[in-house]
Amino acid sequence: MKLRYFEDLTLGERETLPGSHTLGEADIIAFAREWDPQPFHIDPDYALTVPQGGLTASSAHLYAVASKLLFGLNPPKAGIASLRHEMEIPNAARPGDTLTLSVTPVELQPSKSKPDRGLLTLEGELQTQTGKVVLKFRSLMLIYRRPQIKTSE
Amino acid sequence: MKLRYFEDLTLGERETLPGSHTLGEADIIAFAREWDPQPFHIDPDYALTVPQGGLTASSAHLYAVASKLLFGLNPPKAGIASLRHEMEIPNAARPGDTLTLSVTPVELQPSKSKPDRGLLTLEGELQTQTGKVVLKFRSLMLIYRRPQIKTSE
Repeated sequence: MKLRYFEDLTLGERETLPGSHTLGEADIIAFAREWDPQPFHIDPDYALTVPQGGLTASSAHLYAVASKLLFGLNPPKAGIASLRHEMEIPNAARPGDTLTLSVTPVELQPSKSKPDRGLLTLEGELQTQTGKVVLKFRSLMLIYRRPQIKTSE
Repeated sequence: MKLRYFEDLTLGERETLPGSHTLGEADIIAFAREWDPQPFHIDPDYALTVPQGGLTASSAHLYAVASKLLFGLNPPKAGIASLRHEMEIPNAARPGDTLTLSVTPVELQPSKSKPDRGLLTLEGELQTQTGKVVLKFRSLMLIYRRPQIKTSE
């Protein structure tokens, strides 16, 4: 998604983005050692003892992967800031999973006070190669409207 | 926070965790290049042109920092999985900000079906050295209850 200008987005139009991200076991462990060193993210043997029954990716890692797939291929110029996010982890993401992202604009609200921008609410799902959803999110973001070209008459 | 067992947590008790994380400009850019390469996270000159008026940390980076401060110093054994997160970015985090984390357990619910675990809802705030809140979150996590020692009589 190029995070096109506000005017280019269509409410309810689901889009599967190009690109994917494969979670290698070493990557899961390296990310978690730095940012979320709970033992079920960094110790494969310990992880066998928890209900998930094996190593799982940190939710911080999944959120980072979703950002990468949303913005990484074509870093957009239309974004201004992200304001609020809700996310759920319906299923664990595991070593070897290859993740892809689908997103849907679900609300579009032009700013009342600033004519150059608007609020976008975007829902997204990060899925594995077998269609298992490992992250669901709903994000509120501020984005630019398409610049108006003034014509003199 | 050692993410103590369910029984050790006190509803409404706010705790400021030991440890802090300073966001260097190079760190903000490096994290964002890998995970969230929007131009206002990686290009200091471009960032001057957006409403924030300067480089800001990615929300994925802030979420990772919150995980690190929550779990990094004393990786806990009581956690099982995180299920749901809500977060807001009330103010931008900028190069040079030193962040600390405060958390408050706001709901504790023993599992009805599994006596060894319970649900914890934790609210947290990541603050700068001047008390500016740059991330507010509310997380639902599954954690172990303190193991019962059976006594024979």
